[in-house]
Amino acid sequence: MTRERLYLYDTTLRDGQQTQGVQFSTEEKRTIAESLDALGVDYIEGGWPGANPTDSAFFDTAPKTRATMTAFGMTKRAGLSAENDDVLAAVLNAGTSAVCLVGKTHDFHVRAALGISLEDNLDNISKSVKHLKNMGREALFDAEHYFDGYRANPDYALQAVRAAYEAGARWVVLCDTNGGTMPEEVRRITTETIAAGIPGDHLGIHTHNDTENAVACSLAAVDAGARQIQGTLNGLGERCGNANLTTLIPILLLKEPYASTYETGITHAALKTLTRTSRMLDEILNRVPFRQAAFVGSSAFAHKAGLHASAILKDPTTYEHIDPATVGNARIIPMSNQAGQSNLRERLQGAGLVVKKGDPALGLILDRIKDREALGYSYDTAQASFELLARDALGQMPAFFEVKRYRVTVERRKNKYNQMVSLSEAVVVVKVGGTKKLSVSESMDETGSDRGPVNALAKALSKDLGPYQAIIDDMRLVDFKVRITQGGTEAVTRVIIDSEDGEGRRWSTVGVSANIVDASFEALLDAIRWKLTRDWKAT
Amino acid sequence: MTRERLYLYDTTLRDGQQTQGVQFSTEEKRTIAESLDALGVDYIEGGWPGANPTDSAFFDTAPKTRATMTAFGMTKRAGLSAENDDVLAAVLNAGTSAVCLVGKTHDFHVRAALGISLEDNLDNISKSVKHLKNMGREALFDAEHYFDGYRANPDYALQAVRAAYEAGARWVVLCDTNGGTMPEEVRRITTETIAAGIPGDHLGIHTHNDTENAVACSLAAVDAGARQIQGTLNGLGERCGNANLTTLIPILLLKEPYASTYETGITHAALKTLTRTSRMLDEILNRVPFRQAAFVGSSAFAHKAGLHASAILKDPTTYEHIDPATVGNARIIPMSNQAGQSNLRERLQGAGLVVKKGDPALGLILDRIKDREALGYSYDTAQASFELLARDALGQMPAFFEVKRYRVTVERRKNKYNQMVSLSEAVVVVKVGGTKKLSVSESMDETGSDRGPVNALAKALSKDLGPYQAIIDDMRLVDFKVRITQGGTEAVTRVIIDSEDGEGRRWSTVGVSANIVDASFEALLDAIRWKLTRDWKAT
Repeated sequence: MTRERLYLYDTTLRDGQQTQGVQFSTEEKRTIAESLDALGVDYIEGGWPGANPTDSAFFDTAPKTRATMTAFGMTKRAGLSAENDDVLAAVLNAGTSAVCLVGKTHDFHVRAALGISLEDNLDNISKSVKHLKNMGREALFDAEHYFDGYRANPDYALQAVRAAYEAGARWVVLCDTNGGTMPEEVRRITTETIAAGIPGDHLGIHTHNDTENAVACSLAAVDAGARQIQGTLNGLGERCGNANLTTLIPILLLKEPYASTYETGITHAALKTLTRTSRMLDEILNRVPFRQAAFVGSSAFAHKAGLHASAILKDPTTYEHIDPATVGNARIIPMSNQAGQSNLRERLQGAGLVVKKGDPALGLILDRIKDREALGYSYDTAQASFELLARDALGQMPAFFEVKRYRVTVERRKNKYNQMVSLSEAVVVVKVGGTKKLSVSESMDETGSDRGPVNALAKALSKDLGPYQAIIDDMRLVDFKVRITQGGTEAVTRVIIDSEDGEGRRWSTVGVSANIVDASFEALLDAIRWKLTRDWKAT
Repeated sequence: MTRERLYLYDTTLRDGQQTQGVQFSTEEKRTIAESLDALGVDYIEGGWPGANPTDSAFFDTAPKTRATMTAFGMTKRAGLSAENDDVLAAVLNAGTSAVCLVGKTHDFHVRAALGISLEDNLDNISKSVKHLKNMGREALFDAEHYFDGYRANPDYALQAVRAAYEAGARWVVLCDTNGGTMPEEVRRITTETIAAGIPGDHLGIHTHNDTENAVACSLAAVDAGARQIQGTLNGLGERCGNANLTTLIPILLLKEPYASTYETGITHAALKTLTRTSRMLDEILNRVPFRQAAFVGSSAFAHKAGLHASAILKDPTTYEHIDPATVGNARIIPMSNQAGQSNLRERLQGAGLVVKKGDPALGLILDRIKDREALGYSYDTAQASFELLARDALGQMPAFFEVKRYRVTVERRKNKYNQMVSLSEAVVVVKVGGTKKLSVSESMDETGSDRGPVNALAKALSKDLGPYQAIIDDMRLVDFKVRITQGGTEAVTRVIIDSEDGEGRRWSTVGVSANIVDASFEALLDAIRWKLTRDWKAT
């Protein structure tokens, strides 16, 4: 049986950027585009070229993708020809093979927002789409406020989408711009739109989550015949967000009737990277991943009820609608020490630490992790700090050196040219094999810029560690993340530091303190200690 | 036209407590029950008496509510009479007028989890419900795994719910326990269940959000004829959570066809408290409220896209599906490089700064915002820093005082008891009205704990500002957020600080620097300057 093809259109980089508090850098956009491409979406909407510097810069240096890179813009303005509209020209200048233009389909908006005649608006849509075609581009038309417009004036809404379709739009995308349409209304209007002559395999659906129905509305449109779905990773987007592709993708691949009716560009192998892709985006946004997210949340397969947990041990299908591994997620049984220990042994093995089943050290390590997590530590990513904690519990952690004290000074004052400048200086005192060593460094980089107190501290700490110095000389700090784990005045800071060495190894360490400098120092210290456990051979 | 009555059944205190990381105290349960009652739900499921000490204690001291207080439990075990089942007795002993018992309806679970015959399970259901009736209680039956069971063996699933209904259950609640059923399947099975003889006004729906469809599944069941909806505040619950009543309630009251077809126990006046009720629960849980939550999230009516914002100014219905005030929420027009001049004017007006359309200052302010956003600043949330930037561009920013220099020292060393302790000290030098003032503070709090360099700096900066001191004396730092805006060694730190004063005003400021202490200092300085622009009256 051949399955019908559904197309996935990602707008994380455009509508997702409309999320309050989200502002991607050009580099972050590149990273996200590459992840989307690896996942296998069909279209990547990269932004609105000409609307802001970041989007323009992204298209100038956009990565080569298998997915169709798409620029977003709006239909030409009335009174200008498509050729002479500079806003439209900027969109085309991005040079993408596909262009998606938003236009009005709700008569009220044509009058209230554009202040032009209904006929002029139809003409703008038609001429704009024709212009895209003349320029050799694949044309998409985002039918803004389509569902509200259809409810108010179905004839006009249909004329508008027909104008786009007849001008050659590959996709006419029905947008529930305000997010207020209920799933059954989406189903009815999509059905009627197809009956009115726009073929379903030229129809897309673009919904928002203002009533928590964006996923259901997308599915209702597919049920009715639409064959393109627009959405974003983690449901980013204007107001309450767009339809969540991180949810829709596993539904389409795993849930019936979708799985056996449709096929998409996403493979089951790529589906296994979904959880990781979702977390990567949160990392870029420095957001705490939403635990209860469908499919990818850390609680999505957490079984807390005692009755559930005991049944799960007999047969996981008793309380799981899918196997968590299919989306790269994992089962959690919070209260089950049994499950905890076997997980732990697996993770220790990954670090080269073989511990026998039933070894009391396993319970000790789990207790320490629990205690430290209560203080704000997190060992999900900080594998190197986890390993040091385990080695310590197992009595396999050499002392190497001892930090006696440190002092960091951050100063801001006027220089001799009357400019405000800042500078940090760090002093670290360590004892290495009976010898006391004082090191001092400052935070200035090669360009004369202040890189801050953590930079000064990192340099001083790794300046003279005696016999260990040669081992850490190729280390460098490559990333630094800070999270406040408790709000308010009792704020506790968690710092995660990524380090790299000359062999290309990369490892993460964690530090926690009310004092951000001290939290950083702890993570720096762990980074060095981890490197020494790996490379130091006592002679 | 009379509308049909829909009943709302809240299980925040029972299924909501199954959320990973949630553990209510008895006192918290009381507070939540009172809020639910004020909101106007019909049933409050308080917990499982006998299953844990908190739930038992809650029922012992449960508040008097207009809503029907309901105890949860499970059907009697095979081999015991209902009268002699001690687990069931504990549930009845809570003395509630209604009792909800969960029981199996999926043949696979009867065999796999209970290990009893299909007939015995039907007998357990029937006898348990009869026992509740004999004890004078309103009986509810939670049909566990009903949809999975119906798919596998519709005859048996129907026999199970019929056993409960015929024994006198006021409500038979169809549960999608594993959360994997799609909305259309819920619609079909609910319709067929009614056709098989269980009247819709005796049917409830209980869904989970594992595919982000809990709200849509609940609505599909109501469409099919079910008349009770179970859910939780903020969608708390096992795994991905239960159907979110905070979303369902405004849908039922405001969205068609629901608003004109049904009535609930919730008044429009109570609906206006919905946002506050949602935030209250987050406060109890010490969670950051989910910004993008439907209806009640702080971003739910935030219009970031420039085109949206300018249309909103003409007519809010252009980009809002409901009036935010109906649910006690508010419109936000955040500032960013996406936004245009009209957006800006609206936001300035909110700050009491009236600027005429076309004023060149608008372009100047937008340019400054763009430049600063490129450096890592973000003005979406930092409204107070935005206002200072605007005042400065408009030439309406008093100098107040000048910071000449500061110095912060962070030190970690052994104390006289040979314990490692850390301490920070800050010196700030300001010039106020021609007078130079040196202030010094340290980071120790009342308990003797080090609160870090930013704490010391905040104290020193606000220690002596001469004539302005009286105005800032009631300020306090209430939240502190850090984000690294560029990865790697070129990391730039963005700090957002929330401050509060004696009048309960709360405002956010932003600082950016490669040096985290300096970024914090900038945000602290803005916080003070904003307070002074608001409260300083030059004499």
